Amino acid sequence: METVIRPAQPEDLGLILSLIKELADYERLSQEVRASEDDLARWLFGDKPVAEALIAEDAGSPVGFALFFHNFSTFLGLPGLYLEDLYVRPESRGKGIGKRLLKELARIANDRGCGRLEWAVLDWNEPAIRFYESLGAKPMSDWTVFRLTGESLTRLAEM
Amino acid sequence: METVIRPAQPEDLGLILSLIKELADYERLSQEVRASEDDLARWLFGDKPVAEALIAEDAGSPVGFALFFHNFSTFLGLPGLYLEDLYVRPESRGKGIGKRLLKELARIANDRGCGRLEWAVLDWNEPAIRFYESLGAKPMSDWTVFRLTGESLTRLAEM
Repeated sequence: METVIRPAQPEDLGLILSLIKELADYERLSQEVRASEDDLARWLFGDKPVAEALIAEDAGSPVGFALFFHNFSTFLGLPGLYLEDLYVRPESRGKGIGKRLLKELARIANDRGCGRLEWAVLDWNEPAIRFYESLGAKPMSDWTVFRLTGESLTRLAEM
Repeated sequence: METVIRPAQPEDLGLILSLIKELADYERLSQEVRASEDDLARWLFGDKPVAEALIAEDAGSPVGFALFFHNFSTFLGLPGLYLEDLYVRPESRGKGIGKRLLKELARIANDRGCGRLEWAVLDWNEPAIRFYESLGAKPMSDWTVFRLTGESLTRLAEM
């Protein structure tokens, strides 16, 4: 049976949360996961969804996912796609499933007139970096993302 | 007269495009700007807007802007705000206007239940980095953004 890439449905919420936790574990960031199925239901399938997901199935079983949303480039004057999470379960790696997920995202980006597909990778994740470079992706090496969260965010809001 | 931070309106489109071009010039990236007023009209004020903007006025004149959109954290299970562009005109710097723009974004993030406010900075822009760190923002130094665009994006879509 072939690999199938399909849009996620509400009945996939438990699966998506499991895959998010497996990815966090791989990234050594499990302690940061606070998301619940209710959160994902609201933001993926609620009145005002902010993100979308794809599920990869291999021989009928779910083996990976991609979660993404729209960003916007002021320089291009166009929306883009931002890939927040890409994950393939360890036992299904090396079969081109990650590439199939990225290819489907590139297709969606082209169909929607998006100018870019972007994502972030941990610097120690060399297999991922080699894979992304093989697809023609370029590292934005001279940029660093800054983040305000928790108390620092509240403090600035109330300053 | 005081500094005022207000949401951008359709009549600000020409101003916003000018400010985007001034920012690109400061970032030594002018050659990358392709956006038109029509593009901005569509994506900021059309049927399906993907981004929003704030305008800073000082003594009645526009002196800066912030352009942002929603992103999504799978780990938090919450949307965040992503600040694509922050710019204050050179003659109005040093008056706390950039901070007023960031403070308004932090307020919007809190009001909307967002877990994070994030943005990217060029590594050579030390004054900006010191400013962001003074607000409690943390650099995500172990992550690199990858980008697929142009022919590489189309090639992957059609692979």
